[in-house]
Amino acid sequence: MSVRREEAARSSGRFAEDVIDLLADVVLRGGKRTRPAFLWWGWRGCGGAPRGAGAEAVLKVATALELIQGCALIHDDLMDGSLLRRGAPAAHVAFANQHRAAGLRGNADAFGVSAAILAGDLALVWADDLFETAGLDSRARRAVGPAWQAMRTETIAGQYLDLYGQGTGVDSPEESLRVAYLKSGLYTVERPLHLGAAMAGAGPELIAALRRAGRSAGVAFQLRDDLAGVFGGPVRTGKPAGDDIRDGVSTYLMAIALQRARAHGRHEAERRLRAALGNQELRAGELGRIQDLLTGLGAVAAVEARIGQLAASALTALEQARLAPPADQRLSALVRSVAAPPAGT
Amino acid sequence: MSVRREEAARSSGRFAEDVIDLLADVVLRGGKRTRPAFLWWGWRGCGGAPRGAGAEAVLKVATALELIQGCALIHDDLMDGSLLRRGAPAAHVAFANQHRAAGLRGNADAFGVSAAILAGDLALVWADDLFETAGLDSRARRAVGPAWQAMRTETIAGQYLDLYGQGTGVDSPEESLRVAYLKSGLYTVERPLHLGAAMAGAGPELIAALRRAGRSAGVAFQLRDDLAGVFGGPVRTGKPAGDDIRDGVSTYLMAIALQRARAHGRHEAERRLRAALGNQELRAGELGRIQDLLTGLGAVAAVEARIGQLAASALTALEQARLAPPADQRLSALVRSVAAPPAGT
Repeated sequence: MSVRREEAARSSGRFAEDVIDLLADVVLRGGKRTRPAFLWWGWRGCGGAPRGAGAEAVLKVATALELIQGCALIHDDLMDGSLLRRGAPAAHVAFANQHRAAGLRGNADAFGVSAAILAGDLALVWADDLFETAGLDSRARRAVGPAWQAMRTETIAGQYLDLYGQGTGVDSPEESLRVAYLKSGLYTVERPLHLGAAMAGAGPELIAALRRAGRSAGVAFQLRDDLAGVFGGPVRTGKPAGDDIRDGVSTYLMAIALQRARAHGRHEAERRLRAALGNQELRAGELGRIQDLLTGLGAVAAVEARIGQLAASALTALEQARLAPPADQRLSALVRSVAAPPAGT
Repeated sequence: MSVRREEAARSSGRFAEDVIDLLADVVLRGGKRTRPAFLWWGWRGCGGAPRGAGAEAVLKVATALELIQGCALIHDDLMDGSLLRRGAPAAHVAFANQHRAAGLRGNADAFGVSAAILAGDLALVWADDLFETAGLDSRARRAVGPAWQAMRTETIAGQYLDLYGQGTGVDSPEESLRVAYLKSGLYTVERPLHLGAAMAGAGPELIAALRRAGRSAGVAFQLRDDLAGVFGGPVRTGKPAGDDIRDGVSTYLMAIALQRARAHGRHEAERRLRAALGNQELRAGELGRIQDLLTGLGAVAAVEARIGQLAASALTALEQARLAPPADQRLSALVRSVAAPPAGT
């Protein structure tokens, strides 16, 4: 990244100072490196060496994954109108603040939106550049390319279905699971494992077992994130609890709650859940009552049970894959950690 | 594109119907195919065959260029708040209209913005996928990869500097030329010629001559576009004349006009130009007076003279390149067409 910043600074100083530095901050400031971890241990578990040219290529692809995640964070925060990310101003807010601080002409918020669109675009483009120059030989390129290509389209498709679901309102629990799988399950766990395995030259059966494990663990990851989106917790550090409800996101949690309210004739509960969904003005008091409803209807317990089943399926699939140590243990631990309730709860 | 639409339709029907169809419409609806034309004749002029595997690869890269242009159009219209593109609603407007027509919940305009961000992201990602799978052999990949990578970062950098320039106000004519070069000259002419030549295996001297030609022609293209942005014309079909002034874009045209107004002590003219720049409420009557000022100050004639010089330099560089016919004639004609005033004026 620093090499590319230097290149860009020569031709366009302001751009390097503003956009590249912000992107570096978003990517380097924190985050749990979940995707790189699954990629790395997928690689190691399929016989990839911990050092050498292959490992270097894996680390470059890992960085590319973090850049795609950087684009997703920047563009998502823009789309959701979120003001905070990881405890700091979201990218569009940071750009708007710079505009104000520099006393520039025009609308600072509009500048923030435009600059954040460009910063996300840059992250996408650099992710591809890193993948392209990761040093994959032509065998690895043939094995890995289709997974890399599919992953980025899947993620965008999942984000669109998520957005569209906010417009149609909550659909069936099955539909919400499908969106959870597309928008984050695939690119958080299944595809990183797939990429790591393919880079290590794994055969189709081993790749299939790892993808099965990744599919279950990825959906568990999103269901855990859905709970954090309503109840808060470290997973969403710096983002207010309840934002998913305010944004009207069609989560599995909410779909189950509505299904149960209907099944038990609890019309008032159903009405209040529907009224809260997409209500940008939702206050803490009413959010607390919605949280109680979700718990009282058994929806939280149902989501927890589903997460437990998914994690168990993922661990079984991992066992069937008979990975080389220490990757077998590390991947099991990773699956448990993405599925586990946040520490302290 | 249709293959990828089929793939996506299987996993996420709504996404294929909405986002992919819109992107196909943006890319296929029209446009002058300027970038593909420079790419193709760069390839042919350096000895590339008109048929066969190499030509197929060039056509895939040409489509990738059109997809990048698709992203630029969709995201630019969003950033500029433009309502029209090529005579039809801009992408964010089309998505908002769909939201309203389907009677979805939530804010239709916000949905339009989010969906357009995702559609642009998809265009970027598919551009890279096409480049990656264009079938370049490893020699071509090494020769072409750096130009492809540089081009996308340059374009984003140029867009950011353009945006930033709207905040700082008009800088020197030299600075505005630099931004014109970065934001469109490079990726409209110089890089397509570079890519075509590199794919054909051209040596460094030939590539350098073509890039010189492309640099001059690309800046001429942007200066012509700047004139169209103020005076209208077929180049900007479907976009209102004066939008660049309303958006406060720091064009060379405006920088020259301000420089001349200052040099001749025409303070009232300078004041009116500065007041018009960035004034979103600028009406047709006042725009007409600004057009008269730009002409009266000699700025239009100065831009026309500069375009003429740039086109002449480009044609000289093309001659020095001694390209194979018919590419030599075709490229000269292309350079003349991007520099020429629109037909009928």
